[in-house]
Amino acid sequence: MTTPHGQVETPAFMPVGTQGAVKGLTHRDLESVGAEILLSNTYHLYLRPGDDLIARRGGLHRFIGWMKPILTDSGGYQVFSLAARRTVDEQGARFRSHLDGSAHLLTPEKATDIQAQLGSDIAMVLDECLAHPETADGRALVRASMERTLRWARRARDRFLAIRDGVVPEVVVTNPGQAQFGIVQGSLYPDLREESARETVQMGFEAYAIGGLSVGEPPDVMYEMVARTTPWLPADRPRYLMGTGTPHDLVESVARGIDLFDCVLPTRNARNGQLFTTEGKLNIRNACFAEDDRPPDPACGCYTCRTCSRAYLRHLAVANEITAATLNTLHNLNFYLDTMRRIRDAISLGRFEGFRVAFHQSLSRQPPDS
Amino acid sequence: MTTPHGQVETPAFMPVGTQGAVKGLTHRDLESVGAEILLSNTYHLYLRPGDDLIARRGGLHRFIGWMKPILTDSGGYQVFSLAARRTVDEQGARFRSHLDGSAHLLTPEKATDIQAQLGSDIAMVLDECLAHPETADGRALVRASMERTLRWARRARDRFLAIRDGVVPEVVVTNPGQAQFGIVQGSLYPDLREESARETVQMGFEAYAIGGLSVGEPPDVMYEMVARTTPWLPADRPRYLMGTGTPHDLVESVARGIDLFDCVLPTRNARNGQLFTTEGKLNIRNACFAEDDRPPDPACGCYTCRTCSRAYLRHLAVANEITAATLNTLHNLNFYLDTMRRIRDAISLGRFEGFRVAFHQSLSRQPPDS
Repeated sequence: MTTPHGQVETPAFMPVGTQGAVKGLTHRDLESVGAEILLSNTYHLYLRPGDDLIARRGGLHRFIGWMKPILTDSGGYQVFSLAARRTVDEQGARFRSHLDGSAHLLTPEKATDIQAQLGSDIAMVLDECLAHPETADGRALVRASMERTLRWARRARDRFLAIRDGVVPEVVVTNPGQAQFGIVQGSLYPDLREESARETVQMGFEAYAIGGLSVGEPPDVMYEMVARTTPWLPADRPRYLMGTGTPHDLVESVARGIDLFDCVLPTRNARNGQLFTTEGKLNIRNACFAEDDRPPDPACGCYTCRTCSRAYLRHLAVANEITAATLNTLHNLNFYLDTMRRIRDAISLGRFEGFRVAFHQSLSRQPPDS
Repeated sequence: MTTPHGQVETPAFMPVGTQGAVKGLTHRDLESVGAEILLSNTYHLYLRPGDDLIARRGGLHRFIGWMKPILTDSGGYQVFSLAARRTVDEQGARFRSHLDGSAHLLTPEKATDIQAQLGSDIAMVLDECLAHPETADGRALVRASMERTLRWARRARDRFLAIRDGVVPEVVVTNPGQAQFGIVQGSLYPDLREESARETVQMGFEAYAIGGLSVGEPPDVMYEMVARTTPWLPADRPRYLMGTGTPHDLVESVARGIDLFDCVLPTRNARNGQLFTTEGKLNIRNACFAEDDRPPDPACGCYTCRTCSRAYLRHLAVANEITAATLNTLHNLNFYLDTMRRIRDAISLGRFEGFRVAFHQSLSRQPPDS
């Protein structure tokens, strides 16, 4: 995948740097584990420090000092999960800031404008995010929401093209080569997914994402929905599965045609002391690691595994040392990025199926503590 | 200064890694700013994870993966400042753990044993720490405490030599080349300082520290006490001023014969957003930095100053990002260690007095915000 800030080998995993930093890591830490692209959150940056301020700094890349590719979400997901007193109508989403209670209106146009000012390499359209529909009238709700997302996508694309054409002077464009991805919705209804995909592709975005999964449904259901959606998305453009997932999810979704992932799992769980390894998960705070001199993952070559024992990491985690977050996050991100490297290698060698089987067998050897 | 884990250029500043890590930094971060020796806290490590556990891991160096020199304090200072329900008698200090309320007795022998098991390169004797004496009967109190510290030092030295002679089998020695420093007390009474120094030197420690300063007295009073104490300490051994201090303190204390320093100021203040620079202090959370594209210190070559603007650091600090602690700590430690490098250069060029004047003039150019 080529962006104004360089190339990204796909399939790729994007570490999440919500407010312009991956929690606990410096950018050089991030580069040391081989991250090629960073995801940042429009909702958070819009509220603080503000997209106007970032545009005056020359855009997000220059503001945060990360000169490799950046993808920004639309802000919609955080509005639906974090903001207070949220109401949605055809115009957009009204909400109150979780920081200071101030009132805001996020429209498809506004989400496009903010991301143009941030100057990410990839901007996402604003979509409506539904929770996993449990109710009997789910289908009608999902159809209505999916259709609204299509109308919002049209508006977002029109705004994006107008900005690109230079006819929106109030928006400061900090990255003229920005791409915009459409998002397929439709929850767990394959026919609605198909309809959403066909209509979205019709609008001619640079590439496409699958939204509204990883929201509580069983993994197999998610895999099935991915498999029923990717055939409708152009094979020559990256396909991005938003907000996913576990190591298992990555491999299974690549098998179904996905090229891009993001997820807070490796970073958030690291801060809670959960380490992903080639032999399953370790909860490093467990007493069984108090005198364990082995590295977290003997098969891993990251800084943490090269220099720290489980006993030391357990001590730091139990003592609530900030450094524990750094070391654990470094390892988990390296594990995720290494998984993607192994996937790419397997694909290029024509051995993906063999890799897939071996990977799941390896992960299923859960250590006794987990 | 030569230790079993390598040499340390003096005068030197020791970053504080209380629980076996400098808060927010990895060891490679620490090496990147040129740290040559780490200070770690006996009180914290004794309570958690315990010196027995660390001894079973092969000692503190191997446990934490830091193979350069380590100095451990005696634990006394933390017992006097952190522990609950503390009572002191001739035997030692009884206290309750601040973690779980468990009862402990720290004697001069016990402090020596713990440090032998930790295997630091430099162990400190247990001393009695008095607060800055404000009362009229201060002198009698100080004399009694100073004399007790001398008796404790004798016991600590005897224990240290017994351990070195291999006649204390219950103590696992993880660093046979460990040195032990005595500590001069006497508060703000020059004659008591002199008496304490003479008696302590008489005991024949590998080197000597000055304790009981930087506890609230004005800087000039501290400098005067340092000046009245160092003449009684051997010139061919490092002289260590414990728990000090500001950049100004470092330069003025070197001028009075000090070779070793430790202080939480650069690391603790970094986590609160205060940055030390060649032009004074910056409180990076201040609104005036919101759109300041300059590095924290244009004269600094650290990673933070090479890659981050004040605007970005302000954003991270205001957003309470963990990464702010890392970036600010990196800079502050680099500033302290760079100050020591400049002091050493000036001394070796025979230009220390000129450096001293220029340094204070530079620091006194306080930016308007601080």
